Amino acid sequence: MITLVRRIPELKKKIKQARQRRKVIGFVPTMGAFHEGHLSLMRRARRETDFLVISIFVNPLQFDPKEDLQRYPRQLKQDIALAKTAGVDLIFYPTARQMYPTGQETVLDIPSLTDHLCGRSRPTHFPGVLTVVNKLFNLVEPDISYFGQKDYQQALLIKKMAVDLNMNLKIKICPIVRERDGLALSSRNRYLSPSQRRTAPCLYRALCQARQLIKKGERSIPQIIRKMRSIINAEKKTRIDYLNIVNPSTLTDLKRITRRPVLIALAVYVGRTRLIDNILI
Amino acid sequence: MITLVRRIPELKKKIKQARQRRKVIGFVPTMGAFHEGHLSLMRRARRETDFLVISIFVNPLQFDPKEDLQRYPRQLKQDIALAKTAGVDLIFYPTARQMYPTGQETVLDIPSLTDHLCGRSRPTHFPGVLTVVNKLFNLVEPDISYFGQKDYQQALLIKKMAVDLNMNLKIKICPIVRERDGLALSSRNRYLSPSQRRTAPCLYRALCQARQLIKKGERSIPQIIRKMRSIINAEKKTRIDYLNIVNPSTLTDLKRITRRPVLIALAVYVGRTRLIDNILI
Repeated sequence: MITLVRRIPELKKKIKQARQRRKVIGFVPTMGAFHEGHLSLMRRARRETDFLVISIFVNPLQFDPKEDLQRYPRQLKQDIALAKTAGVDLIFYPTARQMYPTGQETVLDIPSLTDHLCGRSRPTHFPGVLTVVNKLFNLVEPDISYFGQKDYQQALLIKKMAVDLNMNLKIKICPIVRERDGLALSSRNRYLSPSQRRTAPCLYRALCQARQLIKKGERSIPQIIRKMRSIINAEKKTRIDYLNIVNPSTLTDLKRITRRPVLIALAVYVGRTRLIDNILI
Repeated sequence: MITLVRRIPELKKKIKQARQRRKVIGFVPTMGAFHEGHLSLMRRARRETDFLVISIFVNPLQFDPKEDLQRYPRQLKQDIALAKTAGVDLIFYPTARQMYPTGQETVLDIPSLTDHLCGRSRPTHFPGVLTVVNKLFNLVEPDISYFGQKDYQQALLIKKMAVDLNMNLKIKICPIVRERDGLALSSRNRYLSPSQRRTAPCLYRALCQARQLIKKGERSIPQIIRKMRSIINAEKKTRIDYLNIVNPSTLTDLKRITRRPVLIALAVYVGRTRLIDNILI
């Protein structure tokens, strides 16, 4: 039986009960609109923990006023059905008023890690993510929480926050799930028109090209980036937001490949839809 | 028997044991150098909780480079003896390396509340306080934590952080303990020379004067502040850092007294020692 919880006091009661029964609590925070990527996190959590909580909350704090908060896909009924198939025990799907009743004034940030990659073009995004995830961790009290590698910078930030603040949980980062043609699964893929959808795998093709070049001995990062850019720019209606090869712990740009692993990360607009992808090599 | 714990893994073990025995955990975070103010918090926590944890940690993150981190009084042996008399169960006294092993990069702040009173002259102070208290709360997992009203702004910030981040605990704010002549107890009082010590009660005298004026019907805040200032300025070697009459929830300045309560708060240098005090009227 899956339990649906909308209000914080009820959530706390359920969590307390699970704690008293000495359950190991697994947690997957989401914004809903589930795809196979979300489900892979839930299935892993199901295998590794006793009581599996997920949250569905399209967090206004992590959207810039110009971004797609209103348009972001919502499909609660379908999400509940999918969560059931993944063996979820409890879905917490609060209202914004439950999460931010008196206005949120406490600010969380990790400036050294947010001023790179996605944080550059979305300056309010990660403080909003850190705040909501911190709140959710305090509410759900998970032993293990699961995040997808597709949002690599997000996962890194959350891991760092948990360590820095001595939060009492483990963070596990799980592999990217892809379509057959390599496109990383994302709730935003449904914004793509059929022709944009055919274009979108160019992100992954560029990443594979980089992997190939490095395998063959290429060490110059400007060279690798140039070739990746040309793959993406060859496609119509694409615009590169960023494309960087960085130290995977600090996210700072590298000039040459001298040590493994490196993180290759990119964000590309296909039409008006911003897609991200990355690979650790 | 009092337990002394220096390392985080041992602390976590002890907390887990207390949790499993369903103890209600009380917590008083301190920087040591105990006086009757600290002890009053511990005694209250002793009455209201089952397992009483205190921390002693002179947190470098909340001192500005120009401030008195090095000089701040340290007296561990005496503090342990005093804590015993107050019925403390566990003292956590970590090293800076235990608390900040890899460099602290996560930043916590409440800009709407830090840009007032003490936060104005000590801009890095409250982010440092919020960070260490957030960490300590995650480590100690208290049910109730106790703070003194002398550091009113600190207590307000911590309460707001706990609410905003859904931290699973209650914050209780306890009355200021004073010397017979009205001087609020503070570990920094021991910096005062004998003649400065005779001067120091002027903070409290100014607060009492304000209370008196309001009782008699004075409603103009500039008038009240003028009279308070003249009391302090009449003393040699005093310099007012701030003296404000504010809304006790938002800390914003008031022009007239139209509603109760108001917070009257001040910081005054007596020689080179900065003293603070406040009163809710």
